[in-house]
Amino acid sequence: MADDSTPPSAQLAAVTVSDDASVLKAEFSDRVLIRSIISRPDGGSGLAGQKIRIGGWVKTGRKADKDAFAFLELNDGSCASNLQVIVKADKYDLGQLVQTGTCLSVDGVLKLPPDGKKQKVELDVDKVIHVGPVDPAKYPLPKTRLTLEFLRDHVHLRSRTNTISAVTRIRNALAFATHSFFHKHGFLYVQTPIITTSDCEGAGEMFQVTTSFSEAEKLEKDLIENPPPSEADIEAAKLIIKERGDDVAQLKSAKASKQEIGAAVAELKKAKDNVLKMEERSKLKPGIPQKDGKVDYTQDFFARQAFLTVSGQLQVESYACALSSVYTFGPTFRAENSHTSRHLAEFWMVEPEIAFAELEDDMNCAEAYVKFLCQWLLDDCREDMQFMADKIDKTCIDRLTMVAKTPFKRITYTEAVDLLIDAVKKGKKFENHVEWGIDLASEHERYLTEVLFQKPVIVYNYPKGIKAFYMRLNDDLKTVAAMDVLVPKVGELIGGSQREERYDVIMSRIEEMGLPAEPYEWYLDLRRFGTVKHCGFGLGFERMVLFATGIDNIRDVIPFPRYPGRADL
Amino acid sequence: MADDSTPPSAQLAAVTVSDDASVLKAEFSDRVLIRSIISRPDGGSGLAGQKIRIGGWVKTGRKADKDAFAFLELNDGSCASNLQVIVKADKYDLGQLVQTGTCLSVDGVLKLPPDGKKQKVELDVDKVIHVGPVDPAKYPLPKTRLTLEFLRDHVHLRSRTNTISAVTRIRNALAFATHSFFHKHGFLYVQTPIITTSDCEGAGEMFQVTTSFSEAEKLEKDLIENPPPSEADIEAAKLIIKERGDDVAQLKSAKASKQEIGAAVAELKKAKDNVLKMEERSKLKPGIPQKDGKVDYTQDFFARQAFLTVSGQLQVESYACALSSVYTFGPTFRAENSHTSRHLAEFWMVEPEIAFAELEDDMNCAEAYVKFLCQWLLDDCREDMQFMADKIDKTCIDRLTMVAKTPFKRITYTEAVDLLIDAVKKGKKFENHVEWGIDLASEHERYLTEVLFQKPVIVYNYPKGIKAFYMRLNDDLKTVAAMDVLVPKVGELIGGSQREERYDVIMSRIEEMGLPAEPYEWYLDLRRFGTVKHCGFGLGFERMVLFATGIDNIRDVIPFPRYPGRADL
Repeated sequence: MADDSTPPSAQLAAVTVSDDASVLKAEFSDRVLIRSIISRPDGGSGLAGQKIRIGGWVKTGRKADKDAFAFLELNDGSCASNLQVIVKADKYDLGQLVQTGTCLSVDGVLKLPPDGKKQKVELDVDKVIHVGPVDPAKYPLPKTRLTLEFLRDHVHLRSRTNTISAVTRIRNALAFATHSFFHKHGFLYVQTPIITTSDCEGAGEMFQVTTSFSEAEKLEKDLIENPPPSEADIEAAKLIIKERGDDVAQLKSAKASKQEIGAAVAELKKAKDNVLKMEERSKLKPGIPQKDGKVDYTQDFFARQAFLTVSGQLQVESYACALSSVYTFGPTFRAENSHTSRHLAEFWMVEPEIAFAELEDDMNCAEAYVKFLCQWLLDDCREDMQFMADKIDKTCIDRLTMVAKTPFKRITYTEAVDLLIDAVKKGKKFENHVEWGIDLASEHERYLTEVLFQKPVIVYNYPKGIKAFYMRLNDDLKTVAAMDVLVPKVGELIGGSQREERYDVIMSRIEEMGLPAEPYEWYLDLRRFGTVKHCGFGLGFERMVLFATGIDNIRDVIPFPRYPGRADL
Repeated sequence: MADDSTPPSAQLAAVTVSDDASVLKAEFSDRVLIRSIISRPDGGSGLAGQKIRIGGWVKTGRKADKDAFAFLELNDGSCASNLQVIVKADKYDLGQLVQTGTCLSVDGVLKLPPDGKKQKVELDVDKVIHVGPVDPAKYPLPKTRLTLEFLRDHVHLRSRTNTISAVTRIRNALAFATHSFFHKHGFLYVQTPIITTSDCEGAGEMFQVTTSFSEAEKLEKDLIENPPPSEADIEAAKLIIKERGDDVAQLKSAKASKQEIGAAVAELKKAKDNVLKMEERSKLKPGIPQKDGKVDYTQDFFARQAFLTVSGQLQVESYACALSSVYTFGPTFRAENSHTSRHLAEFWMVEPEIAFAELEDDMNCAEAYVKFLCQWLLDDCREDMQFMADKIDKTCIDRLTMVAKTPFKRITYTEAVDLLIDAVKKGKKFENHVEWGIDLASEHERYLTEVLFQKPVIVYNYPKGIKAFYMRLNDDLKTVAAMDVLVPKVGELIGGSQREERYDVIMSRIEEMGLPAEPYEWYLDLRRFGTVKHCGFGLGFERMVLFATGIDNIRDVIPFPRYPGRADL
């Protein structure tokens, strides 16, 4: 176990590589991570002679020297590199070990390979501790190169491939870099709700969250097992009331004892209760509860319609208006029937919100954050980035470097439209017509960042007609203080704005846009009481992974992609 | 903007306090955080003479010296402490400024207060930059002490209170500490899915995710606006087919031109298509799609029933069986109609999973993680922890210290039951009967950790009958390699187990428990191909916040609590 007695913040840089070049540390198991060997400056050669335990899965294996031993390339997912492992035939059935996908845990001694070998160190196996075999005839992931599309049908095994495991490590690094960046700058992480009864600006189709189906199923089952009473049953039960009533009357007129009368009255009450219960039960109908011809959501878990969030922005604003600098980082959802390579039904968003800040502060924060992410990958994920450059997109490292180093170009929406119109005049063809007032299409955004400026571009001050009610109205009364960050490869990476903090202005914007005020009363309270200038933005986390890795399909940069017709596992 | 040119990992300890004692740094706005003044070792006194901009909300304000100036306690949420701000009457309407909840942004000069004052530094205001006023007659959060229960009805404003903002900062610290711990030990963060078609061990009631209601509503609206064709309409349209057919026949027998015949055939085709469409449309029925008397989920977004996850464990296992050390940290859901102070419908879970590891490694990891969290709070959240100790639970700091320093007691379930039976013999009364085979109740767990051992206790090797199918069967064939971490104040904080890696054993466990194998085929694949010993656990994040803060109700330690009947915002 690690020594955690030094203050935690001082330990952050430690990762798994010990500072002492001669010691390998196991992490909550007997084995050491392959990364802790390979990622040393000496590639592990300084560890020769050490006895260690290693675990991993065989990437490729081959027998050599007339089957006297086997060379196995072992990978444990801690880094892209494999450790070469040599097993002699007297240690285990080599035919088993050389199969791709076999799991192996071994004790052995690190040694320097013969001159001229690529690797800096290899492991000579003393003892095979564990084998998880693979029948190559049945294994869905043979050694041959598999397409990312094929792998989507094997989402539970695809993390065993070089590409998906590299993407996973890069995604992990981007997530930790995100938390580190905001922590460093004094932002508090606020976990905004997933289930919501608010709709952020009607940002698109929402998934509904319900227990109505399961409740209806339960009721249906119950009604089959215990059928509700028929009218005849109820009539019969009513007759019993009458009889019991007669009994009481008779006893009274016969001047029976108090006790006798009391007992008869109790029986009468029981009969009445029974009829009430029967009548109640006879009203039960199978199916989803209805009222006035509509679904009756008051019977649902939250006593009203509830949805999966499309953005945590409105909720996180309520925390910014108290704690100044906050951010949320969580899953968001869109129920759009979209089958493109850019859309998911479930995806992650990073949404910071800053109080006492205006649009320029927002742009500064967004630029610093994106640069920080790029620099982090260049510093901490070099091996995986090199893999992506070799196999997926040869420009990806250059792109990260350029974004990390180059000041972002900042232009107003009006300037952007003028530039696009100029381009059209000079012969550039766009599918979508360009004029002031349009929402920029992806082709326009990519032209600006990829062709015209060849660096990240921030477009700001958009026409109010194409933006949400909560964006701050500029003094020209035509535009709002919104901004989008455009980057090569993916186009829009970030969208943000200064929020309208003036109660009267936001109220008239809500009216102007024909929105009902009632659902936003709580949001308006933030302007009614101690209002503050504030701004924020949202970064689509998977878009950032696409940007970094050069992968084309967003379904390949999230562990378990959800899209129309598919929610495997 | 901050200088981000040094490698990110080297910057982590920076937070917002500059190392240079004479410089205050603004973070993406003109203002400096109050924390960056107050949290200095000198309490900010060394900054006297500096001109700065500050923003925040007035906690309390009072006029003094015959209304010549006002003293305001200003808080910006960056720390528990307020900064005392002094405004002279010629700067602004003091009657406005002294109202609790007023937002204020000011330029001023830091100065040393007169001797004998509690604060080390105060701000003399030069200029009032912004005021967000409050009408005290309407403000829902007056200065008087408010109960946490009252605040739950004002979830959008409650982060402005001392208690909820302190809880928010502690929760933020625990989240960052969690990511830091796993990063440090080489674990990769894997974001497991929120929407799922798997059910983790049938762990309780699940919320269903659907678009069926909104689709049905759309269809209903459409059918009102464009009523489906009647049978008579369709018959009339069929007549047109006949007419068009006759036209074609006539033209053919009249040896009309190819062109004329072609046009008539096209008309005929059109008429036929029209009938097909009308017939299709006439079949549309309002309401949720049904098939064979049941809801037809093939029409739903994911083409099957989909739910909100109750745990990411099964999915994260698929990553552990490729990348060795992984964890998920995300929202999980239970649709239980539970109104206790310990249950939420939406809550966050931390779930690490380690390959090449057994139950003891699991316990080591859990113990190291909990200790790390406690030490982190003691190091980094001292002021907020002191606030909780003063206002909520005077034992909370002692509890953190004890857990950070004391080795956890480890006992088997059998030993635990024996100890409880002993206690009963000696006169201890439990509501729930104790015998081997029972699931330990909360009262038993708290007795073990709070009374008997007075420190954290790990109970392991539980009877298989009360545990899930995926837990590894011990050699005694009666118990499984499960473990629970019990801590004072909350009882069970962590539940974990070694997972059954043997294909034959897990298959017979599935059969034994009467579970269908089909939904778990993907999970069984992890055992079929390259199986590995692995283990993991889950920590209920809100339970950890309860444990740390001493707050009693779980609804007060999550920003936006969800429970039966309530999903505000």
